[in-house]
Amino acid sequence: MPKVFVEPIGLTLTIDEQDTLFASLVHAKIDIPTDCAGRGTCGKCLVRLGAGELTEPTERELKRVPEKLRAEGWRLACQARPKSARVSIEVRGTAGQRRILTTSQLTHGTVRPAVCTRVVQLDPPTLDDKRSDLERLDEALGGVEVPLHVLERLSRTLRDGKWTVTATLYGKRVVDLHAGECEPECYGVAVDVGTSKVIAYLFDLRHGVLLDQEAVENPQMRYGEDVISRIAHAAQRQETALLAAAVHEGINVDLKALYERQDVRPEQVCDMTVVGNTAMHHLALGLCPVGLGEAPFAPAAAEPLTFRAEELGIDMNPYGGVHFPPPIAGFVGSDALAVVAATHLAGKKAPSMTIDIGTNTEIALVHDGRVTVTSCASGPAFEGYQIRNGMKAVAGAIERVTIDEAGEPTELVTITGSEPIGICGSGVVDLLAGLVHAGVVNKSGRMDTAHPRVRQGEEGAEYLLVEGPHGDIVFTQHDVRSLQLAKGAIHSGWELLMDTLGVSLDKLDTVYVAGAFGNYLDLAAAQYLGLFPPVDTERVAFVGNAAGVGAQMALVDVKARRRMAKVRDRTEFLDLATDKRFLEVFSSRLGFAGD
Amino acid sequence: MPKVFVEPIGLTLTIDEQDTLFASLVHAKIDIPTDCAGRGTCGKCLVRLGAGELTEPTERELKRVPEKLRAEGWRLACQARPKSARVSIEVRGTAGQRRILTTSQLTHGTVRPAVCTRVVQLDPPTLDDKRSDLERLDEALGGVEVPLHVLERLSRTLRDGKWTVTATLYGKRVVDLHAGECEPECYGVAVDVGTSKVIAYLFDLRHGVLLDQEAVENPQMRYGEDVISRIAHAAQRQETALLAAAVHEGINVDLKALYERQDVRPEQVCDMTVVGNTAMHHLALGLCPVGLGEAPFAPAAAEPLTFRAEELGIDMNPYGGVHFPPPIAGFVGSDALAVVAATHLAGKKAPSMTIDIGTNTEIALVHDGRVTVTSCASGPAFEGYQIRNGMKAVAGAIERVTIDEAGEPTELVTITGSEPIGICGSGVVDLLAGLVHAGVVNKSGRMDTAHPRVRQGEEGAEYLLVEGPHGDIVFTQHDVRSLQLAKGAIHSGWELLMDTLGVSLDKLDTVYVAGAFGNYLDLAAAQYLGLFPPVDTERVAFVGNAAGVGAQMALVDVKARRRMAKVRDRTEFLDLATDKRFLEVFSSRLGFAGD
Repeated sequence: MPKVFVEPIGLTLTIDEQDTLFASLVHAKIDIPTDCAGRGTCGKCLVRLGAGELTEPTERELKRVPEKLRAEGWRLACQARPKSARVSIEVRGTAGQRRILTTSQLTHGTVRPAVCTRVVQLDPPTLDDKRSDLERLDEALGGVEVPLHVLERLSRTLRDGKWTVTATLYGKRVVDLHAGECEPECYGVAVDVGTSKVIAYLFDLRHGVLLDQEAVENPQMRYGEDVISRIAHAAQRQETALLAAAVHEGINVDLKALYERQDVRPEQVCDMTVVGNTAMHHLALGLCPVGLGEAPFAPAAAEPLTFRAEELGIDMNPYGGVHFPPPIAGFVGSDALAVVAATHLAGKKAPSMTIDIGTNTEIALVHDGRVTVTSCASGPAFEGYQIRNGMKAVAGAIERVTIDEAGEPTELVTITGSEPIGICGSGVVDLLAGLVHAGVVNKSGRMDTAHPRVRQGEEGAEYLLVEGPHGDIVFTQHDVRSLQLAKGAIHSGWELLMDTLGVSLDKLDTVYVAGAFGNYLDLAAAQYLGLFPPVDTERVAFVGNAAGVGAQMALVDVKARRRMAKVRDRTEFLDLATDKRFLEVFSSRLGFAGD
Repeated sequence: MPKVFVEPIGLTLTIDEQDTLFASLVHAKIDIPTDCAGRGTCGKCLVRLGAGELTEPTERELKRVPEKLRAEGWRLACQARPKSARVSIEVRGTAGQRRILTTSQLTHGTVRPAVCTRVVQLDPPTLDDKRSDLERLDEALGGVEVPLHVLERLSRTLRDGKWTVTATLYGKRVVDLHAGECEPECYGVAVDVGTSKVIAYLFDLRHGVLLDQEAVENPQMRYGEDVISRIAHAAQRQETALLAAAVHEGINVDLKALYERQDVRPEQVCDMTVVGNTAMHHLALGLCPVGLGEAPFAPAAAEPLTFRAEELGIDMNPYGGVHFPPPIAGFVGSDALAVVAATHLAGKKAPSMTIDIGTNTEIALVHDGRVTVTSCASGPAFEGYQIRNGMKAVAGAIERVTIDEAGEPTELVTITGSEPIGICGSGVVDLLAGLVHAGVVNKSGRMDTAHPRVRQGEEGAEYLLVEGPHGDIVFTQHDVRSLQLAKGAIHSGWELLMDTLGVSLDKLDTVYVAGAFGNYLDLAAAQYLGLFPPVDTERVAFVGNAAGVGAQMALVDVKARRRMAKVRDRTEFLDLATDKRFLEVFSSRLGFAGD
């Protein structure tokens, strides 16, 4: 069966040659733009052929794909099938070379958007009924708030439409008004503001359909790669506004690309939801994060907040709403809440856990209706930072490593198959697990300096992984120590959380692994290192960008916003920093107890 | 006893020579800025000596009035007493040469402003209490709305003030926040947008004290002198925004003068109320007035409305509120409601009436708790427009005329005593009443062409009033006809209103005459012409700019806003245009039935 490599997601699909690319992508839960569900009429499911061969363009395809795009290699996924054994394609809505996980196995659920359109027919005024135009509209719509910009043209619009108007409502607020009966397009955007990336999902709110997505690197990177340095920058130098502007810039860059690709006008976008860690939440709102930079790490605001787009400078309908689900605590953001919501964790009958590994790793556990969440400072080592030859998950990064019993690397896989230039997070996990398993790194984390591949580097022992074209790629004793701290913190996190709620390993039903890192990870290696509880593999679900899905839920379903706020209010926070058990457990989990 | 002529109000006060000017002005209910109630410490009650002599400056005065102002003739009213028999002074807060009535016998009542400041001391966050800063503030203030611009600096301000902050609240909205405990200055402005002038009253909202006032000609004058042509301009040419900008310009010009004189910064002004006729109400809000230009004259909005200053472009705290009390009907504005409120008409036990003569004359009558209001198109003749030698009430206008039994003018009084150049409204009333009384104009309105002063002019008979330095000042047969139409409309208005509510003349308790015109009017002459019901003179109260007082009430007392909205809801509108009785009554009231 042909294999199709999907860029920029980096997934390889094994597909039936009778299936269209569209069917295979949908089956793999990869969101692909469509308005016609694969019938070849909307022309939106464009993919670009990289390597290999596809079937010839169909007549429908020739009709729908402009010649210019065809010349660039663009095809309709719903019309094309693989013709060669290996094919690589690029789906639209990408972020350049960087691999950013924007898809998820989860779905956003019921469609009950905050924005809707309503057509109303009003009685014109008569000598016996001289009520104001506003009163008529208010009564017809059942009590609404009419902002000044709509009120200004109300009388004219009512008369132009012969007393029939189509109102676009954001909740109880009339954000737009059209004369007569029409079906104005109406879009919404769900945004996941990560420390390193800003992902935006464009939805058609009339049908609750995901149309497209876009991700850019968080422009705040210029103020520091990690959250702490950005908080310090914003708080100490009082430059909050600059960091806020950077987030808005990131969102607006996403929007611009989406608008161009999907032919959407900013004023048609009337709703947005934004999730992120607490620092990103604050900076996206422009809130001074001084409280997050000092004990006891109190947030400026931890309520559900909704502002008008104009207040934030977001490039959409200025009177549309921008909703921020609440963060849970100083170090547990609304993204963690979104993960809990997307996995429906709070409603699970059996003890279940979500875990989202990053610089901060958030872990949530439900048991007997009680939801507790913790956060551990796992550092950026598992994301490839602060590792000698670590790198982001972009082309040339080693993402898979197999180490044999003798401690020799037998297989290296790089992203896009390029020459290796460094190791990304999933490669680091594979490598460390392999080296521990082979005894090159012992249980206390010391590197065997007698191993033929271990040599003395400038900063102590280092393992030579591969002699790359741009220099040797090594893994150092110092790298091992960084990873030990990280895995010790994560291991302590889920262990203390389970201890707190009295959940034993055999009772733990499902572990949902969220986030970019998790999706590319070798589960066995990760469990071996203690990153996840050692439950049976079938009880581990990789759910991709669950935070994004949570933001989508809040976008398409206004009731989900209330549910999230309720879950947030009943979620307890386990503060590891002040937990008396932490130091003991942490020190005992620094080593590699595996096997 | 010395006489003091007060400019630009045009009133002459007879005062005790032991009294200060301040005491006399206050006694005459002329608003004069003060913070110290006349103790000589605030330095705000400045008046400028025009003619005559005042007592020497006191030590306090020398201390409070800068030398530059003293050199220009400015004195403190609370320190100066008249020294000569006749003194003329100018009070601050004027509008150039034009006489604009900005004072009133009424007072704005209880002080319960929508804006207040509150000092709160919050508990700082601890390990056991990690509530957000917003939650703390919200709890301390008992549930508030915190706009983004305040939220942005909340954390910093709380920490700068060591968890004590002073909040400025507009209702439940926090519009400003200061670190620590302080007493931020807080001002408000009441605005009366008239067709011809825009008057603004600056209040210190902490004490509910009127500080100063300013009036400018309505910049909409450039789009037509009357309301109808402005509505047509705004509606037909879709230039509503231009007319709205003109009103805002007028308000901003007033504000600029007030800010400069009173050393107030725009951000310290957190509240504003605006009243006006329905067209001015719509145009001040930027509402398309198309509904007001065609039957059945339905307003775009007739609810109490409050917007943020930033939405309207008013030069004050952008997050402060601008409140518009509701208009009553298409031709009865919120200014009429303000008059009803200022005179407490709705609460009167005995049948009482308010009457506000202008291009549109609004008349309200209360009886047995029932409030009915009507509006009659009286035209601009009584304001000096569309009269051959009519003019505005500015220097040189004849404001008083006495006609003897023989039909000869025996006394002419002009504004500021200048050479006569025309006749203003009150002069026209005197003249017409005098001519009818002397039989120069008969009961059907025909001029006696045999009278020695009546000659044949270009457009028919005309009465030569005076040979002025700039040419003859005449009163024509055509002028008489214009005034007949106006007085016929007004007379029919109050008569049909009384008829509707079943109030006979002998039952009518008080007639409140509001507006600039009324204040300078000779009551007997006006009653003779039928402009007011012929009740005993002691039952007529001239209340000056009652609309302005109503706006002030709404400004200083948030409960007055609710009261006004309630009065509005129970006020009935008598539509003369569709009233079957109107034509008959109108035609019978065109003549002069006097004596």
